[in-house]
Amino acid sequence: MSTGILAAHRARIEQRIDRWVAGLPDDPLYAPMAYLMRLPGKRVRPGAVLLAAELFGHDPDDVLDEALGIELFHNFTLMHDDIMDQAPLRRGMPTVHTKWNVNTAILSGDAMLVKAYQLMARDPEVLRLFSEHALGVCEGQQRDMDLERRTDVHVDEYTEMIRLKTAVLLGCALQVGATLAKAPSAERMRIGAMGEHLGLAFQLRDDLLDAFGDPDKVGKQRGGDLRAGKRTFLLIRGLEKSDAAGRTELREELGRSPEARDVQRMLHVLDELGVEAEAAAEVEHHHAMALDALDTIDVADARKAPLRELAQALLDRVH
Amino acid sequence: MSTGILAAHRARIEQRIDRWVAGLPDDPLYAPMAYLMRLPGKRVRPGAVLLAAELFGHDPDDVLDEALGIELFHNFTLMHDDIMDQAPLRRGMPTVHTKWNVNTAILSGDAMLVKAYQLMARDPEVLRLFSEHALGVCEGQQRDMDLERRTDVHVDEYTEMIRLKTAVLLGCALQVGATLAKAPSAERMRIGAMGEHLGLAFQLRDDLLDAFGDPDKVGKQRGGDLRAGKRTFLLIRGLEKSDAAGRTELREELGRSPEARDVQRMLHVLDELGVEAEAAAEVEHHHAMALDALDTIDVADARKAPLRELAQALLDRVH
Repeated sequence: MSTGILAAHRARIEQRIDRWVAGLPDDPLYAPMAYLMRLPGKRVRPGAVLLAAELFGHDPDDVLDEALGIELFHNFTLMHDDIMDQAPLRRGMPTVHTKWNVNTAILSGDAMLVKAYQLMARDPEVLRLFSEHALGVCEGQQRDMDLERRTDVHVDEYTEMIRLKTAVLLGCALQVGATLAKAPSAERMRIGAMGEHLGLAFQLRDDLLDAFGDPDKVGKQRGGDLRAGKRTFLLIRGLEKSDAAGRTELREELGRSPEARDVQRMLHVLDELGVEAEAAAEVEHHHAMALDALDTIDVADARKAPLRELAQALLDRVH
Repeated sequence: MSTGILAAHRARIEQRIDRWVAGLPDDPLYAPMAYLMRLPGKRVRPGAVLLAAELFGHDPDDVLDEALGIELFHNFTLMHDDIMDQAPLRRGMPTVHTKWNVNTAILSGDAMLVKAYQLMARDPEVLRLFSEHALGVCEGQQRDMDLERRTDVHVDEYTEMIRLKTAVLLGCALQVGATLAKAPSAERMRIGAMGEHLGLAFQLRDDLLDAFGDPDKVGKQRGGDLRAGKRTFLLIRGLEKSDAAGRTELREELGRSPEARDVQRMLHVLDELGVEAEAAAEVEHHHAMALDALDTIDVADARKAPLRELAQALLDRVH
């Protein structure tokens, strides 16, 4: 988020987060929440709440609580997902279960979900949306774990998994802002669809960055997903294309233990098979679909500029 | 819950749970919830919601969703607490993280909390109460873990911990029923206080049953808390009285690894020092306080009979 409105919104959100952290009780239950919320983040989801409210003529300052609630929910899922994935780092810093321990990360995450709900309780329709999408995120994480145990995952199953795990929350964030702005139901659906496509583009871009990004900027080990044998778009399409081309390098590497995997060799194969280019094209596709959805919303075109800018920022990001 | 109204309420609750389980999506995320909710339970908390509503002249059938929500929340805390406590058994059956795995127990528990919220969303004041008390329960679990690492716990710290971890949820259940029945605020406070005292009596009775109950009826190993070195009322007072009497058996046993602890010897010391009797007196004290709170509520005395019966059932229970 580089220019005027996005930067201003981000500053508003950081300020709201600081105020929230300062108001936390002095109890070990809350320290991990403060730690995670203060790690540098892109604040895409809370930013989306503000932008959607503004698109429909509503004061963004009025929706800051719900924006914070969405960011808290997102960080709650990170805290628990990092336990499940045994991830040592998050945004380049130790994960909560590494810095404290697993029990603390479970319990503090639980309390963080309750804190998120306290912020989402003002409007019944917002609350309904939030619960519905929160369940979607849990279902997505469940599928993620299921897919990891399988070697025959189809790319459509993967897309549906990341739609639930990642994309629906961005769609939810935009719908929350639109709902608080009293936008008509059809418009709320459209902006929700925009968010889902943007979320898909965002996650596919994440997969690409994990494998082909600059590790210093991304803040985690290069190819960490490949080393873990995680079924991402890259690995799934890589395996399909390898099988068609009679190439066995990827399956050979997957047959080894994670520590013994030659990640460079895996990256080389993905590049040669054109999987990187294919993933980039998928990102572009969902980006275009997101913009199409935005176009159908009945609001003066000039007011859509900040959301277009957000979409572009997500596409251009290097971490 | 033996007689008429309590048994009828329990049947209503079981029926509502069955309907809820039958409506769950066919997804691995939900199977552990169904499993835990179908284990035989006393249904004290949802029963309390119905009884409180009825006390203030409200149809108990109208508050079944919130009663289910409270029971879901309670079971969510059990699912996560069992991970943290590394408990193999719950109600005599394998815990969720044992039957499935830790990741499934974390994630299914998270989704269960969201499902609980969906049922608590009808009334804003109920929602507010629920979030406030849910945080209290998390704070209580945090203190429980903190106390376990210390050898110098005072009995007042223990009582405050179990108040948060266990008692506030029973107080919350009663307040939820009273709130939905549109009881005046002062009456809601009184029934909340009744619930907290009842909850304290309930938990202290649990401590007693863990040590001195019949293992076949209790459904877990006798003295499991003592073996784990868990700071309960019995162990804390046992250590205090041992130190005063110059007896060292308890500290000797705590110095050993859990597997090597002589639980029979520990039980014998607690009995000789009169700690069992002291705990039983504490149970009686909080039971009496609960009944005192009920007495101050401005409702015809005859209508209070089912709540008195509930209090007695909790005191008399053997498991």
